[in-house]
Amino acid sequence: MSTAPFATLADFKALLTGAPGPDTAARAAAEARNGQLTKPPGALGRLEDLAIWYGSWRGTGRPVINAPQVIVFAGNHGVTAQGVSAFPAEVTEQMVLNFQHGGAAINQLSRTFGAKMDVHALALDHPTADFTQGPAMSEADLLAALATGWTAVDASTDLLVVGDMGIGNTTAAAAIAHALFGGTGADWAGRGTGVDDAGVALKARVVEAGLAQNPTAKGDGVEALRCLGGRELAAMAGAMARARVERIPVILDGFICSAAAACLQQISASALDHAVAGHVSAEGAHGAVLKALGKEPLLSLGMRLGEGSGAALAISILQGAVACHSGMATFAEAGVSDG
Amino acid sequence: MSTAPFATLADFKALLTGAPGPDTAARAAAEARNGQLTKPPGALGRLEDLAIWYGSWRGTGRPVINAPQVIVFAGNHGVTAQGVSAFPAEVTEQMVLNFQHGGAAINQLSRTFGAKMDVHALALDHPTADFTQGPAMSEADLLAALATGWTAVDASTDLLVVGDMGIGNTTAAAAIAHALFGGTGADWAGRGTGVDDAGVALKARVVEAGLAQNPTAKGDGVEALRCLGGRELAAMAGAMARARVERIPVILDGFICSAAAACLQQISASALDHAVAGHVSAEGAHGAVLKALGKEPLLSLGMRLGEGSGAALAISILQGAVACHSGMATFAEAGVSDG
Repeated sequence: MSTAPFATLADFKALLTGAPGPDTAARAAAEARNGQLTKPPGALGRLEDLAIWYGSWRGTGRPVINAPQVIVFAGNHGVTAQGVSAFPAEVTEQMVLNFQHGGAAINQLSRTFGAKMDVHALALDHPTADFTQGPAMSEADLLAALATGWTAVDASTDLLVVGDMGIGNTTAAAAIAHALFGGTGADWAGRGTGVDDAGVALKARVVEAGLAQNPTAKGDGVEALRCLGGRELAAMAGAMARARVERIPVILDGFICSAAAACLQQISASALDHAVAGHVSAEGAHGAVLKALGKEPLLSLGMRLGEGSGAALAISILQGAVACHSGMATFAEAGVSDG
Repeated sequence: MSTAPFATLADFKALLTGAPGPDTAARAAAEARNGQLTKPPGALGRLEDLAIWYGSWRGTGRPVINAPQVIVFAGNHGVTAQGVSAFPAEVTEQMVLNFQHGGAAINQLSRTFGAKMDVHALALDHPTADFTQGPAMSEADLLAALATGWTAVDASTDLLVVGDMGIGNTTAAAAIAHALFGGTGADWAGRGTGVDDAGVALKARVVEAGLAQNPTAKGDGVEALRCLGGRELAAMAGAMARARVERIPVILDGFICSAAAACLQQISASALDHAVAGHVSAEGAHGAVLKALGKEPLLSLGMRLGEGSGAALAISILQGAVACHSGMATFAEAGVSDG
C-alpha cells in the first residue's frame, strides 16, 4: 500500500475502532486440533495459547509463519535539549546507518529468525519540538508519521515487530505513560541508555513539565502521541494499527513500543488484541506499562536496547509454538494412547 | 566415539571431576568484544552473559553455533506398577515411534531451530526394577546407560540438549531430588503428565518409600541415579558428562533433565558449569531443583512436556545471543559515538 487510507486523525481513529476481531471459527478449529496433539493436555503451556491465538488472527486452525517483518523507525527528539540522554542526538542517524549496513543487534536477530528487516528514518534533521515548551508535533506531523508506519507494513507480512531508534525517546515514552496512566514523573522515568540517578531525577521533572505544558495529552492517546511522542513512536503506532486492521499478529517490544501501543489502546480498547508482549525490558517502568495493557511478557532477559530487539527474539517463541501446533501428529495419526 | 572411555563408575566419576574448565582467554576476548559493540553497555541483558559464557566454553571470543544436537532418551520404569502415571507405560514406546516419524513436539522444535535430533530407546522391554522394592538398576545397567548417553553425543556438536521420554519418570526424578536435596516426598512430587491430587499424594508416598528402600541413594549422585533413576535419566547424565569433558555447552530441560544433572553436580561441584537452564517447567518442583543447582531459567512459559522441548525452544535464545555478539559492528567499525 503506497498511501495510507486516512487523511485525518478522525479517519485513523475510525479505522482502528472498526477493525475486525479474530476469526472465531479458526480459533475453534485451532483449539480442537490442539486437544488432539501427541502430548498431555496443556503440557506445552503458553505455546498452546500462542498458537491458537495466532491461528485465530490468521484465520486458520493450522497456521504457519512465512513472512515475519521487523520495521525499525527512527526519529529525533527536541527534548534532548533538556539533557535527558546519555548519548548525543547524532547517534540516532549513526545507528540508522548501522542498521542499513547490517551491524546492529536487530539485524542479527532478524536474520537469525528469518525476518525481513526494514528501516525508516523520519525527518532526522527536523527533530520534534521540545515538549517542555509546547507540543512535540503538529497534527500534520503526526498524520505523516502515522502514514509512514501504516505504509511500511508489507501486505504479505504475517507477523510484525516494530522497533525504535531515537535518542531521547525513553523520556518521550515516559511522558506518554504519565499522560495515560497517571502517577508521577518518577514512576515512569528510567535509566534509558544509561543515565545516573541525577539523570533519572531530571527525566522525571522533564516528564512532569511536558504534561503540564500539554494538558490535552492527559488520558488521550492521540494527543499524548502528538504532544509528547515523536515521529518514530507515531510510526510504530501507525504500523501496529494497520496490522490490527489487517489481522496481522504483532509482538510488542519494550518501553517505547509499549508506550506507542498504549496510545492505540486508549483510542480503542480492542486495539491490541492482535498483540502479545515479546518481553519485559529492564527499563524501569516497562513492566508497569505492560500490566496496564494487560499483557504478560513472553521473555524476561534484562534487555533494554530497543530497536525491536526483545520482540525480534520472541519471534522464535511464536515460531516454536506454531511449528508444534501445526506440525505435530495427533494421537490418532501416531497411534499413541491418549491417557 | 563408539565406546565410552570408562569401564567403572570410579572411572566415570574421575572423568567428570577432572574435566577442564572454560577457556579464560576466550572469556576475556569475548568480554572485550562485548564492550565494543554498538549498544549501550549491558543493554542486551542476559544475552551478553550467554554469549560470553558460550564463547568461553567454545574457546573463542567470537563464537558461532553451527551444530546444535537434541538427543531424546527413552526408558521404562518399574515404579509405574505403583500407579503413579496418568498414562500407560506402553506410551513410552509409542512416543519413540512418534519421535522417529517426526510427529512429536521435539521434532518440530528441533527442526525450527536447526538442531539435529536423535532418539535412543533404552531397553524399553526391560523396565527398571520398581524402586519401592529395591534398586532400579544394577551397576552394570547404570554403566551401560551412562555409556549410551556418552556415545550418543556427536563429536561435532557445539550445543547440546538432552530430552527424556519415560512414563513414570517424574516419580523417578522426584525420588532423586528427595535423595539429594532432602525435604519430604511431597516437596518433590508433582502432577507429571496430569495426575490428580490423590495421584500426587501417592507419588509422594512412593518417593519416600523409594528412599527408605534405597538408603545408599541419600546424598550420593551415583547411587541416586542407580537406585531411583532410570535408564533414560542415566543416559542424559552420561551425555551431559561427555559434553562437560569436551566443553560442549548444554541447555538443561525440565524436571527430569535437571534431576539427572543434579546427580552430576553431586559428584563434582563444577559438573554443570557448562550448562544453562533452558526453562522452568510447570512441574511443581522444577523451580526448586533449579534453585538448588544455582541456575536461573531462560524461559518460563508453563511448559511441562519433557522430551527436551523447553531446552530446544531455548536454543533460539542462545542463537540470538551469539548472533548479536559475533555479528554486530563495533562502535569503531560503524562510526557510532559511544556515549
